[in-house]
Amino acid sequence: MFENSDRTELAALGEFGLIDHLAHHFPSKSGSTFLGIGDDAAIIKLGTKHLAISTDMMVEGVHFDLTYTPLKHLGYKAVTSNLSDICAMNGIPTQITVSVAFSNRFSLEAIEELYEGIRLACEKYEIDLIGGDTSTSRSGLVISVTAVGEVSPKKITKRSGAKPGDLLVLSGDIGGAYMGLQILEREKRVFLEHKQMQPDLEPYDYIVGRQLKPEARLDIVKILEELDIVPTSMMDVSDGVASELHHLGKASGVGFEVYEEKIPLDQQTLDTALTFNLNPSIAALNGGEDYELLFTMDQKHYDKLKNHLDFSVIGHATESVGKYLLNTRAGNSFDIKAQGWNHLTENK
Amino acid sequence: MFENSDRTELAALGEFGLIDHLAHHFPSKSGSTFLGIGDDAAIIKLGTKHLAISTDMMVEGVHFDLTYTPLKHLGYKAVTSNLSDICAMNGIPTQITVSVAFSNRFSLEAIEELYEGIRLACEKYEIDLIGGDTSTSRSGLVISVTAVGEVSPKKITKRSGAKPGDLLVLSGDIGGAYMGLQILEREKRVFLEHKQMQPDLEPYDYIVGRQLKPEARLDIVKILEELDIVPTSMMDVSDGVASELHHLGKASGVGFEVYEEKIPLDQQTLDTALTFNLNPSIAALNGGEDYELLFTMDQKHYDKLKNHLDFSVIGHATESVGKYLLNTRAGNSFDIKAQGWNHLTENK
Repeated sequence: MFENSDRTELAALGEFGLIDHLAHHFPSKSGSTFLGIGDDAAIIKLGTKHLAISTDMMVEGVHFDLTYTPLKHLGYKAVTSNLSDICAMNGIPTQITVSVAFSNRFSLEAIEELYEGIRLACEKYEIDLIGGDTSTSRSGLVISVTAVGEVSPKKITKRSGAKPGDLLVLSGDIGGAYMGLQILEREKRVFLEHKQMQPDLEPYDYIVGRQLKPEARLDIVKILEELDIVPTSMMDVSDGVASELHHLGKASGVGFEVYEEKIPLDQQTLDTALTFNLNPSIAALNGGEDYELLFTMDQKHYDKLKNHLDFSVIGHATESVGKYLLNTRAGNSFDIKAQGWNHLTENK
Repeated sequence: MFENSDRTELAALGEFGLIDHLAHHFPSKSGSTFLGIGDDAAIIKLGTKHLAISTDMMVEGVHFDLTYTPLKHLGYKAVTSNLSDICAMNGIPTQITVSVAFSNRFSLEAIEELYEGIRLACEKYEIDLIGGDTSTSRSGLVISVTAVGEVSPKKITKRSGAKPGDLLVLSGDIGGAYMGLQILEREKRVFLEHKQMQPDLEPYDYIVGRQLKPEARLDIVKILEELDIVPTSMMDVSDGVASELHHLGKASGVGFEVYEEKIPLDQQTLDTALTFNLNPSIAALNGGEDYELLFTMDQKHYDKLKNHLDFSVIGHATESVGKYLLNTRAGNSFDIKAQGWNHLTENK
């Protein structure tokens, strides 16, 4: 009973475009909303306390492929990917809600596997599952998680706040989740063609684990606290460092220079990229789902981090607004494009 | 790469059974969790303030039918049905997050219609949309909303707390949303058989509106505050009064007696039930989605409510745990069964 005479295809806008397009119709009205749409998490102010809140939806066939994703891992990842957003605000996750829709091809045992992964994540991160919803769907599995956490008002770290000269720092290593996905997709193709062949994923255990069972870097939030470092801006790496750099730069009004030799890569990531004939650095910058933390900080903190194995200083913020440069090992320099993972246009 | 040798069909367990089954694996650990799974909303304690948080997922083909549901109404209802859960804790909604997955049959204009309904609900209830997620899906539309609200510690109203002798009170009238759905389903069947016939819904405007565009009874929460009434237990009517009575009774350890003549029915609900050859009272007790508030209160408050048009005292709590009796106009008395809306077994 409704009609749309004009029709604009959503793919033309892209996911970030759509969110921007919709968000400006929603000005903030509630007195307790400290920070609304547009960061890794929103912030609610309640008395003297601040609460970070973030939500994500994972859809079968778009965000995951059950051919190679164990349901227990999927449940774990659905939680940790949301906790990562709370960490990206410099917060400590405390609770989650989980809603799940599934078709009748899922048995009770399958749903229990999914919730066992959710339970393991709750146990590891010491958070509570406080609510949710279960429902049937007509086709695939859909999981929606909302994460809540506490953040000290003095430590709230937004995407805006980076200043020219600030150091650009990355936790852990990147590109692993993306290369793990390439391996899983390759083995799936092999399996579909030759059903008797069993994939041997052991040589790729690290990167496959990065894809299937990522962790939220709550440990980094705690280390930053111990080192007395409050980042000037921060994001988690869900869409890829290249894309996140554009977000940080746009929100903060700065540019960035990144040094290729400083990009932290695991040996398996490096080897696998070469197997697939990919430039490891470019693959790592564009690959998503590592759930590492990317942040900027004042140069004065450099000595605290320089020998710390969990951190890599990969570049710095500049005054060249909108410029994102990669300085290569070979001494060249070129633009970092925000490819990101666009779930509105991709068609896996 | 995962297998389940044993398979239990989820329909055998039902939605409430599944939630109970899963919930006991999740003991509360976080110090800030004041109330976890099992009520209309969870409560988080933050300093001296308490926050209510609730989440729901709506799936196309299960919870709504786009043949007769305008997207603007759907967006509105997705919000109000969640705000209703915050009201059911005696709280004031303040923020929501919304995640939406949609297939490529939806245009930008269609998604804008959906968000226009969300925006109208935000405006009416003076709440902020603070976050969310948009994604493609491989088939239908899925909407997940998480609502947040503030609730004064002294006024938190759980499902437990009803005492024998407490009065059972209902806001507004019930059964309208269910009878509206019957009309819409009938008109859909007529339309599918005779495409040239346009449905005339005007004689059913009230009940169709109750189904398509329900309101959250935030006004009732405010009236209770003005009247200085803190209910001893409360729920919102989403699955039907019959089902909610069982929830309140089970959580509080009481039984209930309901008087048929006191059940508040709109004339359209009554007329439509008779058209469909249904007993209006039974249809009203079992019909869901009215989003009225059902609560118990101490008898001392009776005089404050007895002449108030927004409230009907429909019965009282008894010591007969597990007994839910309907006393009919004809002087008979029989058990109220919890039929509810079981989205795990129904197959619309």
